[in-house]
Order: sequence, then C-alpha cells, then structure tokens
Amino acid sequence: MTNIWFLDEESRSRWILYRVKKHVLEAETDFCTVRIMDTESLGRILVLDSKIQSAELDEHIYHEALVHPAMTAHSNPRRVLILGGGEGATLREVLKHGCVQQAIMVDINKQLVEICRKYLPAWHRNAFRDKRARIIFDDAADFIREAREKFDVIISDISDPEEGSPAAFFYTKEFFTLVKGRLKPDGIFVSQATEIFYDGSGIHPIINRTAARVFRVAESFCEFIPSFSSMWGFIAGTQGLSLKGLERKSVTGRLKERGVKTDFYSAAMHARMFILPPAAQKAITGEKKISTRKNPATVYSGSRGL
Amino acid sequence: MTNIWFLDEESRSRWILYRVKKHVLEAETDFCTVRIMDTESLGRILVLDSKIQSAELDEHIYHEALVHPAMTAHSNPRRVLILGGGEGATLREVLKHGCVQQAIMVDINKQLVEICRKYLPAWHRNAFRDKRARIIFDDAADFIREAREKFDVIISDISDPEEGSPAAFFYTKEFFTLVKGRLKPDGIFVSQATEIFYDGSGIHPIINRTAARVFRVAESFCEFIPSFSSMWGFIAGTQGLSLKGLERKSVTGRLKERGVKTDFYSAAMHARMFILPPAAQKAITGEKKISTRKNPATVYSGSRGL
Amino acid sequence: MTNIWFLDEESRSRWILYRVKKHVLEAETDFCTVRIMDTESLGRILVLDSKIQSAELDEHIYHEALVHPAMTAHSNPRRVLILGGGEGATLREVLKHGCVQQAIMVDINKQLVEICRKYLPAWHRNAFRDKRARIIFDDAADFIREAREKFDVIISDISDPEEGSPAAFFYTKEFFTLVKGRLKPDGIFVSQATEIFYDGSGIHPIINRTAARVFRVAESFCEFIPSFSSMWGFIAGTQGLSLKGLERKSVTGRLKERGVKTDFYSAAMHARMFILPPAAQKAITGEKKISTRKNPATVYSGSRGL
Amino acid sequence: MTNIWFLDEESRSRWILYRVKKHVLEAETDFCTVRIMDTESLGRILVLDSKIQSAELDEHIYHEALVHPAMTAHSNPRRVLILGGGEGATLREVLKHGCVQQAIMVDINKQLVEICRKYLPAWHRNAFRDKRARIIFDDAADFIREAREKFDVIISDISDPEEGSPAAFFYTKEFFTLVKGRLKPDGIFVSQATEIFYDGSGIHPIINRTAARVFRVAESFCEFIPSFSSMWGFIAGTQGLSLKGLERKSVTGRLKERGVKTDFYSAAMHARMFILPPAAQKAITGEKKISTRKNPATVYSGSRGL
Repeated sequence: MTNIWFLDEESRSRWILYRVKKHVLEAETDFCTVRIMDTESLGRILVLDSKIQSAELDEHIYHEALVHPAMTAHSNPRRVLILGGGEGATLREVLKHGCVQQAIMVDINKQLVEICRKYLPAWHRNAFRDKRARIIFDDAADFIREAREKFDVIISDISDPEEGSPAAFFYTKEFFTLVKGRLKPDGIFVSQATEIFYDGSGIHPIINRTAARVFRVAESFCEFIPSFSSMWGFIAGTQGLSLKGLERKSVTGRLKERGVKTDFYSAAMHARMFILPPAAQKAITGEKKISTRKNPATVYSGSRGL
Repeated sequence: MTNIWFLDEESRSRWILYRVKKHVLEAETDFCTVRIMDTESLGRILVLDSKIQSAELDEHIYHEALVHPAMTAHSNPRRVLILGGGEGATLREVLKHGCVQQAIMVDINKQLVEICRKYLPAWHRNAFRDKRARIIFDDAADFIREAREKFDVIISDISDPEEGSPAAFFYTKEFFTLVKGRLKPDGIFVSQATEIFYDGSGIHPIINRTAARVFRVAESFCEFIPSFSSMWGFIAGTQGLSLKGLERKSVTGRLKERGVKTDFYSAAMHARMFILPPAAQKAITGEKKISTRKNPATVYSGSRGL
Repeated sequence: MTNIWFLDEESRSRWILYRVKKHVLEAETDFCTVRIMDTESLGRILVLDSKIQSAELDEHIYHEALVHPAMTAHSNPRRVLILGGGEGATLREVLKHGCVQQAIMVDINKQLVEICRKYLPAWHRNAFRDKRARIIFDDAADFIREAREKFDVIISDISDPEEGSPAAFFYTKEFFTLVKGRLKPDGIFVSQATEIFYDGSGIHPIINRTAARVFRVAESFCEFIPSFSSMWGFIAGTQGLSLKGLERKSVTGRLKERGVKTDFYSAAMHARMFILPPAAQKAITGEKKISTRKNPATVYSGSRGL
Repeated sequence: MTNIWFLDEESRSRWILYRVKKHVLEAETDFCTVRIMDTESLGRILVLDSKIQSAELDEHIYHEALVHPAMTAHSNPRRVLILGGGEGATLREVLKHGCVQQAIMVDINKQLVEICRKYLPAWHRNAFRDKRARIIFDDAADFIREAREKFDVIISDISDPEEGSPAAFFYTKEFFTLVKGRLKPDGIFVSQATEIFYDGSGIHPIINRTAARVFRVAESFCEFIPSFSSMWGFIAGTQGLSLKGLERKSVTGRLKERGVKTDFYSAAMHARMFILPPAAQKAITGEKKISTRKNPATVYSGSRGL
C-alpha cells in the first residue's frame, strides 16, 4: 500500500485521511482544480478544489437518491433539466426513465465534463451519447434566466454553497424563484441540499425554509453517503404534490413501467429517505432564516490548503 | 484550538482525526486502556484501546436505537438483562420504561464502570442509583451460563468482535443459544451488530445468519451513528414476534403509557431503522457462513499503535 | 501504543506527528497555553501554544549549545543574566560554571516556571534552589531597560519571534542596544536565533546582521536539535572577543577548572558549531535587512489550530 | 495548495507529512515501486517503496557529503566504482574530479535509472553521457564478487539496510571484505551509513565497528540532511589513510586543481563532518556487535502501508 493520503477536511476539527492507491489525473480548469485518484476505501474519486464530489463506491447512492424520488413522483416526466452534474451520472439516472424525451444538462465547466467522459466511464456509462441527451456548456443561472421552455423536472446538482463561492446562489430564494418560473404546473424541482446533522445544526434547515417560501410544498429527504461521511440532505419543491406521500406501489409500478433498474433506490428506500431524524425535523420547523442572494447561507469551505 | 489529535483508524486505508480539546482521563484497567477526551467535533468521547465507544454528541442515538425497538416491541418487559454497557446509558434507556421492575447489568470491568460513573454523568444520568438497577461485576458469558432466571429482554452491549478479542464470543451461535435459554418464550434479544456496509461487505450478514440459526425470527436494523462514521447495525432475535412489524401506533402508545421520553427514537424512526439498504439486505439473504466459537466472525482491530 | 498524536506544524507544507504516550498537564497561563506530554520519540515535551519548546531527549543539546560557548569564551563570568528560560535548564547550565557568583533569571510567566519546577525536574535539576540563583518574575524587556547593574554574560532564551508576538522585540536592533548597555566592556551576549536553513532562507541572516549593527563582533553558530527537526541557530555579540576563535585547549581548560560536566558540549563541538553551511554563511554576508521594533523579522506562527 | 500528503513514517511514533504539489510519476519496477512527486517543502522527491531517497532541496548535500571526503582524501583517484546511486548524482559528483579516468556505476535497477534520467535531470545533469562514465545493470554484490579490476575509490550508495531487504548485505563484514579485495592498497571505501542519533542509539555504531574489523582505519562522519529529518552518517574505510586528518589546505588545493565546484562541500565542512556528537562517538567506542550476513544489522522498515 502507498503512503500517499488525501486529506478531506470535513471541518476544522475532523479530518479524514484516505490512502491513495493511484494518482490518475490533475488538471486546472477555468473554474476549479480537478483531481482524480484511485483510493483503497472509496475506489476512484473525483476531487474538485480539495473536496470529494463523488466516489466510485457510492456515487450510485447519491445520484439515485437525487434523481429517482422526483422522477418517480412525476407521473410522466418527458422534459428534464439538469443543472451542473458534470460527471454525467445524474444524466444517466434520468435517462433510465423510458418516458424521458429530452434531458438537457447545463454545466459551466466544459473541461471538467471532458475529463469525466474520459476518466469516469463508470459514472456516465455513455449517457452523454444518448440521443435524448443535450449538453450545454453555460452558466446554469444564466441558462435558467434566459430559458423560454418549461420543464417537468429540474434537478440541481451543483456543488456545496461554500463561503464566497458562486454555488451559494443556487440555494437562495432568488434562484428557487427562477426555477419555479421554468417548471410546468405539475413540475418538480429537486436539489442536493448539504449535510443533515443529527443535532439539527448546519444550513439544511435554512435551505428547506427558503424553498418553502417559493414552493407550495417543500420536502427534505436524506440518505447516508459513506464517501461524504455524513447523512446527506436533499430538497424537493412542487406546487402541490408530496413526494413523501408517494405510495409504495406507485414507486414500484412506475420504475417497472419505465424500465428503470436501480442498485439502491426502491419503494422501501423512498419511504426511508423521507423520514428525518427528529432533531433535524425540529430544526427545520424552528428555522427562521432564509437564504438570499444578499445573505446566502454557506458552509465551511475548508482551509484550502491552510 | 489545540494541535492534539485522536486518530481513529477505521480501516487500513481510512483514518479519521479528531481534534482533542481537553484530555480528561487515562487509566489502565484489568481489561483495557480507558481514555476520556473532550473533542471539538464529538464532545466528550470514551475510548477503549484506541476505539471510540461512545460520544457525547450522539450516544443517545446509539443507545436509544439499541434499547427501544426491543423494549417497545415487548408488551410488558419487567425483567431486563444488560450484558456490558459500562457507560450506564443502556441502563438509563431501559429504566425509562416504567414497567421495568428490575434491570440487571453485568459488566466485567468494575474500574471502567467507576470511571464512567465519575466522568460520564451525561451518559448514566444517575441510572446506577435507580432502585430497580442491579450492577454485577462478572464475565457476562459466565453470568448467562450460570443464571437460573429468565428475562423478558436481554440486551447485549458488548464491544466489537475484534480479531482475537474475547468479545468475538458474543456474536457466535453458542452465545446466542445461551441467550435463548435465558429468555422467556415471548422474550426479545437484541445486540449491537457491527457496521452495515452499503455494498454488502462486512460481517453483519454473518451475524444475522447466525442469529437466524438460533432464533425463529432474526431481524437486522440500522442507524447512522456520526461518531462511528458509519451506518450501524443491530440484530434482534425472538421466537416469533417481528420487531419490524410493530405498528406505529403501538410504538407511540407504549412509549406514552410507560412514560418514555426520547430524543431520537420514535415510531417513524422505528420504521426507518428496519429498512435496510438493498445491497446489505441482499448480502444477508445470500450469506452462507455463520459465526461459531471455533470460527468466530471478526472485524479489523486497528493497528493498535502500528 | 496510543493513537493520540501531537501535530507540530513546522510549516504550511510540512507537519510532524508525534505519538503521545501520556498526557501530563494542560494549563492556561496569563501568557500562553502550557502542555506537557510524554511522547514515544522525544520523551517528555513542553509545548507552549502548540509549539515544542524543549524535549527530554535533547534539551541538553539546546541548552548546552546556548550557554557554554558564551560562558566558556568569557575568562571569568561572575554575574550572569538570563532572559526567559522558564524551564530552568539554561540556569542549570550557567550554574555549572563554578566561577558564577550570581545568575539572575527574569521570566514574565510565573505560572509557567511553577509548572516547570513541578513537572520538569529533569530540566532544572533543582537549579532554582541554588543560592546563587535569583528568579524575578517580570517582563524581560522592562527589566533590562531599568536595570542599573552590568553583567558579564547575558543569555536570551526567549521563544521564537513569531508574527505578532511580543517575542519579536527580543531580536531587534533596539533590544540588542539595550543589552549592550547592560554588558560590561568584556561582556558577552548570546541568544537563540531561529532555524538555520541549508539553502540560506529564513530570518537568521537578518538577526545576524542586526546584531552586527550593534556589537563589534557578531557570530552565528548552529547545532542540529532533533526535536526541532532542524539545524538551530544562535547568535553571539561582543565588543571585540571572537567566540569562534576560542582555542580548543582554552575550552577544555576552563570547563575543567570551573568543574563543568557536560553531555554534549566539548572543545570539538565548540569548533563544529561555528562552522556554518556555506549557503547559510553566504546568506548572512549578503543580507541587507535588519530587524527593528517597527519592522521586526518574524517567523511562521503555525495555523494556531487552523 | 493541495490536500494530498506524503506520509514519511520515520518511526512508529514520528510521522512526517509533506504536502504534495504535483504527482509526477508512479511506476512498478522489478525491485521497488518508484514514485516522483513535487512537494512544497522539498521540491521534487524520489520515493522508493514509501521511503524518500533524495530531494531536490538537499540532494547536493547528501551526494557531496558522500563523495567528496573520500575523493578529496585520495591523492589521485582515477578509477572509481559506484555501487547503486541510480539517480546519477553520485556519478555527477565523482566526475567533477578532473583526474577521474573512469567511473563505473553498477545498479541493479535499469528501469529506475531510466526514470531518473528522464525525470531527475537536476540530479544527474547529464553525467550519464560523460565519456568517462560506464553504467552496468547488475547486482552490485555479484559485480564486486566477480570483478577482476581494482579501484582507487569505491562508493556504496545503496538504500538503507531495512529488515529483510537485500540491501542489508551491503553493510556486513562479508561485503566490506569483498570491497577491500577490490581496492588498491591506497584505495578508499565510503558508504552511506544510516542515521546518527544524538543519544547514541541506532545501528551506525555497529556499521562502524564492522568496518573497523575489515579496514585498518574506519572513520564515521555525518551531516544534517533536512529531507531525512536527521543527522546522517557515513563510513569510510582505508588501509591506513585518515580522512579526518586531511588538512584544510589539501582539501582546498585538490578541489581547485581538479576543477571541482561544490555548493556544500568545503575544507571547513570536511572538518565539521568528522566531528561527531559525543554520545554517538561514545556509542561507537562501546559497541560490541558487528553486522554479518547471518545476523545483519537492520533498521525500521516502516509499516509499508500498515
């Protein structure tokens, strides 16, 4: 085994060291430093600016949890918009739903997408080549501002709202409002939504409350992502539909009728994901703040090399 | 902040560093080295032989998850046996059930229990002084071999079955058989049961299959324990009763009628805990091995200081 | 072995981890946080604000190197002033010279000195009780400003001139001028003077040039201190005498006649210490900057806990 | 800055972490895993099986210290044999001596030498192309056993005698005897000889005593190598000549007349290197053991990945 380690600074007081088996790639793109490494514990990992984005071991959990609750809750998603999602795995999961006619993926970082195409085949599994896929290299915020079309499902797969990062915008009231404007009346919005802490801390409650200002229904759900060493949060917004209320037989039926094969997602997992730990649920209920462009909620950005 | 760190060797290739705020105690007992530290991330932690046993931040999750599914599933638990559980927190949760007449806790390590009484008041919350509690300092295996009494609920809160450790016995067919012999016909056995991996690896499937050889019903459940950085497994065994099948209103009703107040456990969490990730479920179904005294299933013991 | 580690941040890019055997003491004093730990590699260590000050393994090297070149070069040192030196080990070495009539030690941190008396007996070896020793708890800079007496040898054993720290003053032209005013005409000043880098970097050259502005003779010398993981620099200043030029037989003769027993220092080591690596020597010769109260030369202060 | 670190396990209780700036190369050769990385602190480093072999920052110190004391002490070294030395830097220093007619370098690892030629130009500086250089890819022990020729200087630049490693042979009485048989009567043997500890521990004293059994004169010398975080030892053996006794003017004169330009080595450094710390000197004098093929002295091999 090697003695080269990747140090994941989860916080100032908790660091996780992963033994690196093989260094695969390091590249400067216009928006971030991209590193791909093979680790003993997590398999191949994609690291942007010192943060793990996804890992071979469990990217399927993250991407299935992000995509399928919303897609399955929609009775007939034909046009889907993905914001971010450079690895191509969100796209891959969306396209599993046979009813999808077009999935547009908008990512600002062309170089990153090209690297992922080449080095992360287990992530995209050739989804980029699917005739229903359209990849646009643009700022996702600009795209959604200028888009004329409306979508059945909009999925935001943007990196964490770190202090000072442009990503912080994608968790604000202003952004959620833009999104709502681009959804059909029965459309569903879903986004990754930072860690859910068992003691109710963190900014997930603010993201939930922000979504609740914009959408009639705002629902949090969560799943443990081993490579994030935490219970990960997601947020869904609709104009009436409850994802949590989706019946088990509807989940099973729709997956079957659309030909969706999953490794992690199922009717049982759907139910489980919408049961939040009590302290987290309580923190959401009690939260007064919302995230705005002017005062965005943000998370620890790491020391960026101290 | 200090620059003193506790290194938790989760595996050979994943190390977690916790910044230590204050060193509280270090003591050699007859059975292990005990350390108590105050950390920034987890609050106070109890470390036995370099492994975190429980943390102020989330010991309530672990102990509520260990105790309440079994206690609540039993219609009237009066006599309860706890094996191990030196911190006193398992005892604390058991005694919350007003119907309990006696809870016997058997721990081999008297020095450890005394340290916990003094330094971990937030764990035991004076449970040791409860008139219904009886503490016996003895080898839990010997106790159960020689006990004449039968119990309503037996809870095994023994440390991990590390390679070469005496704890490995507490996860074998022979031990489960002893336990069954000391349970009333409607009695319930529950034990912590090592990490549940999302890819189905680890020894939890073996522990489940071992329990299934001894008990008519063997059910796994799990919960994310932040200080263990993992989804933690538990195993329950009965002669017919299904914990998983317990109705939500029974959970809520029994907690109320017995005066049980919890921070984490609830009818919703009960349901959630019994939904296993598909790969883990599949691994259990496919597992052929069982753990025996001669060939016990064991987990990585850390380098013990390399 | 334990899994508790002390992280010594030598720089932003080089960290040294020492395994801690036993935690001995942690105390907040008025001036710094004091920690004493027993380590596997270095024995007992004294850590002030996350920096190793001295280690059982090699404190004798540091303290003998600091004290004896100056003391031995002086033909008859009777009155000696020590600035700082809380551990008592500098005092111990000074008092080995039988000719010393009084050694005054001025340290601002009374609590630290009391801790050292109690927990570092191997350092002071009862030097504090020597009748020739006088301990004054005062700001060393104030003391030297107001002192009326003149000394044969003045030894500055102050911590590193970290950015923003009051210690930075003790390496400036203004301080050196104060010291010169308190030395007898044949008096000798000596100070620890930060790491000497083999590539000529660091601030030691500035300290040398600063001393050379104040003293007629300014000489650097160095020794490898394992617990500092580096070649450590010292600076001596006199009004004419060369420490480097001291003949071997004088060293040997004076040590013998004054009854000085050492573990590290000898005539041979004296000669060795004054031979600087060529790049360091060249950096000194080429250095143009000096350290002043207004623009003090400073060293990396560590992340102080990130 | 990155968050990728190289962990140098100096011992079980002291670990040094170097921040990696850029990963350059990783290759499996027939004899070891080769890694080249660019670090913030040490510049480019060559790592064989998790051990730093040499670093851009200070390889010149190591290689000049290894080569020049022996080469300069010889009045007219024409034929020189280098055992190991894959980086080409030992060869480079040897060839600086204008009097050298042929330098034969024998290294078992052809792949390593090819990697060094390509990735470490600052090390070899085209020495491999010098007409006086002859590179032989063979086992150095076999070569010396079968060689018919005799040499003026033999330099052993073999990696550390780690437990179980074939390198251990190169520090035994049997090997030294082979070497002596291949030296001309006024020939000089020199080898790197592991860390010199200030407390006299380690195996350098055994290596010295082993050399003293074979050669009439066996002399240790040392220099601080920052990238090894230690005072490094070397051993020289001759049939009468003392390297330590070499006069300063001889050093200066010979370097000049042979056209040798150095960054580190000089007459002053020559003198300094032969002054050993007293405890190390005492340990050598008191050492009774010697290293033999059957019972070779060995050093900690690191956990090799735990």
